[in-house]
Amino acid sequence: MIGGLDRVPTGIKGLDEVLKGGLPKGRTILVVGSPGSGKTTFAVQFLVGGAKDGEPGLYVSLDETPERVKVDLSSFGWDLDSLEQKGKLTLIDATPLKRPGHRFVEPTGRENPVSFTIPELTLPSLVRTIRRIAAEEDTQRIVVDPITSLMLRYPEEIKRRRALLSFFDALESTGCSCLVTSELRTSELERRFQLEEYLSQGVILLHTMVHEGDIVRGLQVEKMRGIGHDEQLRPYQITETGIEVYPKDRVFRTNLR
Amino acid sequence: MIGGLDRVPTGIKGLDEVLKGGLPKGRTILVVGSPGSGKTTFAVQFLVGGAKDGEPGLYVSLDETPERVKVDLSSFGWDLDSLEQKGKLTLIDATPLKRPGHRFVEPTGRENPVSFTIPELTLPSLVRTIRRIAAEEDTQRIVVDPITSLMLRYPEEIKRRRALLSFFDALESTGCSCLVTSELRTSELERRFQLEEYLSQGVILLHTMVHEGDIVRGLQVEKMRGIGHDEQLRPYQITETGIEVYPKDRVFRTNLR
Amino acid sequence: MIGGLDRVPTGIKGLDEVLKGGLPKGRTILVVGSPGSGKTTFAVQFLVGGAKDGEPGLYVSLDETPERVKVDLSSFGWDLDSLEQKGKLTLIDATPLKRPGHRFVEPTGRENPVSFTIPELTLPSLVRTIRRIAAEEDTQRIVVDPITSLMLRYPEEIKRRRALLSFFDALESTGCSCLVTSELRTSELERRFQLEEYLSQGVILLHTMVHEGDIVRGLQVEKMRGIGHDEQLRPYQITETGIEVYPKDRVFRTNLR
Amino acid sequence: MIGGLDRVPTGIKGLDEVLKGGLPKGRTILVVGSPGSGKTTFAVQFLVGGAKDGEPGLYVSLDETPERVKVDLSSFGWDLDSLEQKGKLTLIDATPLKRPGHRFVEPTGRENPVSFTIPELTLPSLVRTIRRIAAEEDTQRIVVDPITSLMLRYPEEIKRRRALLSFFDALESTGCSCLVTSELRTSELERRFQLEEYLSQGVILLHTMVHEGDIVRGLQVEKMRGIGHDEQLRPYQITETGIEVYPKDRVFRTNLR
Amino acid sequence: MIGGLDRVPTGIKGLDEVLKGGLPKGRTILVVGSPGSGKTTFAVQFLVGGAKDGEPGLYVSLDETPERVKVDLSSFGWDLDSLEQKGKLTLIDATPLKRPGHRFVEPTGRENPVSFTIPELTLPSLVRTIRRIAAEEDTQRIVVDPITSLMLRYPEEIKRRRALLSFFDALESTGCSCLVTSELRTSELERRFQLEEYLSQGVILLHTMVHEGDIVRGLQVEKMRGIGHDEQLRPYQITETGIEVYPKDRVFRTNLR
Amino acid sequence: MIGGLDRVPTGIKGLDEVLKGGLPKGRTILVVGSPGSGKTTFAVQFLVGGAKDGEPGLYVSLDETPERVKVDLSSFGWDLDSLEQKGKLTLIDATPLKRPGHRFVEPTGRENPVSFTIPELTLPSLVRTIRRIAAEEDTQRIVVDPITSLMLRYPEEIKRRRALLSFFDALESTGCSCLVTSELRTSELERRFQLEEYLSQGVILLHTMVHEGDIVRGLQVEKMRGIGHDEQLRPYQITETGIEVYPKDRVFRTNLR
Repeated sequence: MIGGLDRVPTGIKGLDEVLKGGLPKGRTILVVGSPGSGKTTFAVQFLVGGAKDGEPGLYVSLDETPERVKVDLSSFGWDLDSLEQKGKLTLIDATPLKRPGHRFVEPTGRENPVSFTIPELTLPSLVRTIRRIAAEEDTQRIVVDPITSLMLRYPEEIKRRRALLSFFDALESTGCSCLVTSELRTSELERRFQLEEYLSQGVILLHTMVHEGDIVRGLQVEKMRGIGHDEQLRPYQITETGIEVYPKDRVFRTNLR
Repeated sequence: MIGGLDRVPTGIKGLDEVLKGGLPKGRTILVVGSPGSGKTTFAVQFLVGGAKDGEPGLYVSLDETPERVKVDLSSFGWDLDSLEQKGKLTLIDATPLKRPGHRFVEPTGRENPVSFTIPELTLPSLVRTIRRIAAEEDTQRIVVDPITSLMLRYPEEIKRRRALLSFFDALESTGCSCLVTSELRTSELERRFQLEEYLSQGVILLHTMVHEGDIVRGLQVEKMRGIGHDEQLRPYQITETGIEVYPKDRVFRTNLR
Repeated sequence: MIGGLDRVPTGIKGLDEVLKGGLPKGRTILVVGSPGSGKTTFAVQFLVGGAKDGEPGLYVSLDETPERVKVDLSSFGWDLDSLEQKGKLTLIDATPLKRPGHRFVEPTGRENPVSFTIPELTLPSLVRTIRRIAAEEDTQRIVVDPITSLMLRYPEEIKRRRALLSFFDALESTGCSCLVTSELRTSELERRFQLEEYLSQGVILLHTMVHEGDIVRGLQVEKMRGIGHDEQLRPYQITETGIEVYPKDRVFRTNLR
Repeated sequence: MIGGLDRVPTGIKGLDEVLKGGLPKGRTILVVGSPGSGKTTFAVQFLVGGAKDGEPGLYVSLDETPERVKVDLSSFGWDLDSLEQKGKLTLIDATPLKRPGHRFVEPTGRENPVSFTIPELTLPSLVRTIRRIAAEEDTQRIVVDPITSLMLRYPEEIKRRRALLSFFDALESTGCSCLVTSELRTSELERRFQLEEYLSQGVILLHTMVHEGDIVRGLQVEKMRGIGHDEQLRPYQITETGIEVYPKDRVFRTNLR
Repeated sequence: MIGGLDRVPTGIKGLDEVLKGGLPKGRTILVVGSPGSGKTTFAVQFLVGGAKDGEPGLYVSLDETPERVKVDLSSFGWDLDSLEQKGKLTLIDATPLKRPGHRFVEPTGRENPVSFTIPELTLPSLVRTIRRIAAEEDTQRIVVDPITSLMLRYPEEIKRRRALLSFFDALESTGCSCLVTSELRTSELERRFQLEEYLSQGVILLHTMVHEGDIVRGLQVEKMRGIGHDEQLRPYQITETGIEVYPKDRVFRTNLR
Repeated sequence: MIGGLDRVPTGIKGLDEVLKGGLPKGRTILVVGSPGSGKTTFAVQFLVGGAKDGEPGLYVSLDETPERVKVDLSSFGWDLDSLEQKGKLTLIDATPLKRPGHRFVEPTGRENPVSFTIPELTLPSLVRTIRRIAAEEDTQRIVVDPITSLMLRYPEEIKRRRALLSFFDALESTGCSCLVTSELRTSELERRFQLEEYLSQGVILLHTMVHEGDIVRGLQVEKMRGIGHDEQLRPYQITETGIEVYPKDRVFRTNLR
């Protein structure tokens, strides 16, 4: 029986069709993309979709402040402030390395902000904080954006491997449907695989390719344990309302402007 | 005389034809694949096929808990729990690194689970445990999925080489037909070979290629000592009932969607 | 709503059309280019455009003396000396490493030059100086050209990552619209991404490619958080009046002389 | 005069024609191949050919036990046991690293097995043992399969170079016609050369290539000092009776099934 | 106004047209080329051209003795000895590393040779010597051929960068028009850029490419600050009278013999 | 005037035409080739050609014993023994590293062999011995085959560079016409250049390429200071009488078998 796992709609137009019903519920999925491919847009759109369906979401920002993320995404008309105030969306700032004393930063935009502290930002400590907040807030979707700088703390592959597996386990133990973003190292379609692609339950690649001198964007569900899915590379665009995938088109045959 | 070695049917549709009769009985075969290529599906399908033919199987899980593997594969309708309860399938959790105290974990889903302990998880200690269980359970097929993190413990190539040879020897000394999975490093068809490809008795590659912007899956029996086999790259798919190989088709000429 | 961010015209013919209205105001954008691709021309043209619209600009020169930059760009007829004397353009020489005692160097060409000193040239100290000058001069546009040698001071990726994020933050905290130039490592279109492409708010690539034996120049807005933009690779030239982008043409189909 | 050196027939169908008369007698030739390319089959077939012509052969197995090699090759109908019993073939197990105490292992399958010991397995000690056995057994052909792990003992190129030259010298001083197998690092036709290709008297490459999605096997006599030979890449197959080369065909024009 | 900088004719047929009037006067330009591409011919031809126009030149030889350079170029009929005797050309031998005691070597071929000494050959000391000679000899053109071994003295990129910038500065402070040659690392058109390409005022590349099995020579003005120029790759040849560029031809469409 | 340098005929059919008259007399030329490309054949053929024209030659063998080289080349009918006995050819064995006590080895095949000793084999000591022998024997042509292992003694590029330049200088100071062979690292036509290609007076490349599945041999005079030459890649073969170049053919258009 295909579809043995429960699904959550992604909130991204066309993607649920590629996934034949949405992402597996309660799993941690990796979104790997090139610069400008829309990883953050993808991840927040997933939370916004959930918030509209009554699933509160938590956005953990590793490289940018939540305030800046909100400004960056303001043109999509998602009204993130309103979702925050209704308790449907929590954004936490996990960029302590840029601040003196490495203070961890409270969620933004809430009327009575609660202060969360991570004494030392490592994969385990981040996970403990996420789990605490998730429990208190009835969170059902979590985004960690991006995982890259945390992975750099484990230069030895065997330790990085172990840390990543623990991290994915811990996220999954929250019961939430999770997205973790990661940076793609190269624009080549033929490339070395990245460690996290092997260790995650599912991988969605956002490629930005150059084909005969044109820039082409393609989304590929490289891996998705537990569910059947379309495995083709499908064109996508970042439109005025967010990311849109074209599940019936082919990347190199789409008419380009 | 081709076929001098006894064969075991793989349980994978179309693959026995590629192998001209099944895998060599009592050998240790490597399955190398890209992320999402279906290595775990392949390996468990091999055990399920054996279980149905009366050959009890042992699944040793290195990166994922057996519980999760069972959920991931639930859509194929293989009823792994039932096979476990009948003693036809044993799943052991060899992921001690993710748990405090590095406790080794008992087989799951059995009514009277027996507790096995590996004091320190290395290739030799893993092998000893596997051999002990295999002897007690009348096991005839073994899967180790995946070997990658264990190989990382031997950073020096000459030692990794020796450890791998011993590991393959030990598995073979159980008398069981064994599959070991390993991660493919790159999506390139023209690539550097990996150490384990040279040291194993047989290698089945699961490639996921990009061909003119389309994702194409191909299976290649790169090596299979002792038996004649089709050496071409053959298309395969992950269908609702598991992996299916098309032994008469060509990967770049198959009609896609 | 696309265009939620305020925009600043770039002063570069054709580029505002590619950006669907100009660069996001108050952001720090990266210009990455190959040798001879016109990074400095691009950056100063942006300041000249601002100066003409009443936005005073600050040019921070890391590898060349401002005097030399002015001579190099003299053929474009921008009259940088006149802009300097009117207080519309400040050029500071941040090349102390080439001078004895590492003295930091005063702005050039002003009637009453003010002397600024950076005791030790690091990303943070550079930023403090920039902020001080920007505040005193009512600066609204800042260019740092190029960032490369400063990045070399952080050989460890995790520290370079942190330093770059702080640097971009600090520039952004000035309230100015900023451009930072960086060197592209390779002429290959299919290439490894560079760290700074992931960490900046926006990336404009200036490629110089070889296509069937011809040199072709192409500009690509790889990334631009907060605004919709044309993502195609567009041909550009360095003309007698500066850089000109052809927003309706394609790089590999343009007629070459 | 071409053919100044005496020749030995290879026992491999079609290969003597490529070599214009067989391998140079008394030389040490390298066989470099990809995984599954048939290096061991090639090497043992050379010994079997010699045994049938009255030239006793010695097979030195570095990675596999001779017992396993015999089983692996059993389908070709060469009756290795019978050749052993007649003293026409000696197989020695040089895999001491996999056994406790690093005991060296006696030849197999002989009625009165003689025990040979190598106190420490290095290139020189291996060579001494080979020479001793070769002298006692009236050996005329020697195979060392494969040389790779021994080369790993010399991480410094200049020392590896010297060790390899001594090794080839010593083999040649036995007066036997020798084959040494080595692992090819990559499947690319355009590739970096390997050290041993420069240092040996002759090199036969066994490529397994992917050409337009098809697997193609090609044999190339890359180098063969002292004799003229066909230098083209020729298709070969592993058939029911061993390796067969097609000396008049081209690899990319052969009709594939 | 294009051409704001004064120009010097290059003395190389066809090149002034590519440069739209010659090299910028008083600048330091890099000539990067593959082995056999004619870097030395190019550089000395530039000095000969100057000498004929009344601009005395200085040739600083880093890898070869001036005597050998004169012999190598003797076939072009430039009569370097005569130019030397008239004081129009000075050749200095900066190859002290090959001589005992690291003595620096006097200019050759002059009637009353003056002895110049560099106590330790580094970029700064070389520059001081060059400046001293240039001042005494009324030099107007300088060639340093090649810079490569001096760059190897700065293994750390940040220090090599600083040294190169200082070196270019110092050369420029002589007021002379300077050429510095450098070795191209690869024959690939798509390649990693070299440090010196970013740090110099202008770069002329001399490529030797293989195109469909033919050797093709192409010259590209990759970069030339301060002047407009043809940016196409243009064919060139080394003729009986020196280098000749074909400013209207294309490299891959030229008829080859 | 092209041809200002005196020339020596190469003794290789077709090559003098490519060189427009032979190699420059008294220079040191590099022959770089892939395994099996015929470097040794090329170099000895050059000596044989000289011996026939009354120019005594010296062959310095670094990797193989002269005895073996003579056997390897015996099929070409050059009668090296006879040339040796007439004093027209001296072969010295510079492979002391393979012998106990690192004794240097006397010239072979002479009636009254003289013993030469190199206490420690380095580039300088080798050169001293070569010069001494060359002076005593009235040698006019010298071959060093191959230089590779000596270069490995200088792991630091700056020192290897200096050693190579001194080595070429010293050879040239003998007044002899010299060939030095070197190993090509890769079979790719587009490749990184090797250090010695930049530092030698002339470079002849012997490529063995794979073109559409066929092996193609091509000779390219990459560089030849002081003389004009054909720069195209020309096909060559190793025939029954030695190497033959086809100076009017193209490598990719030659009819193959």
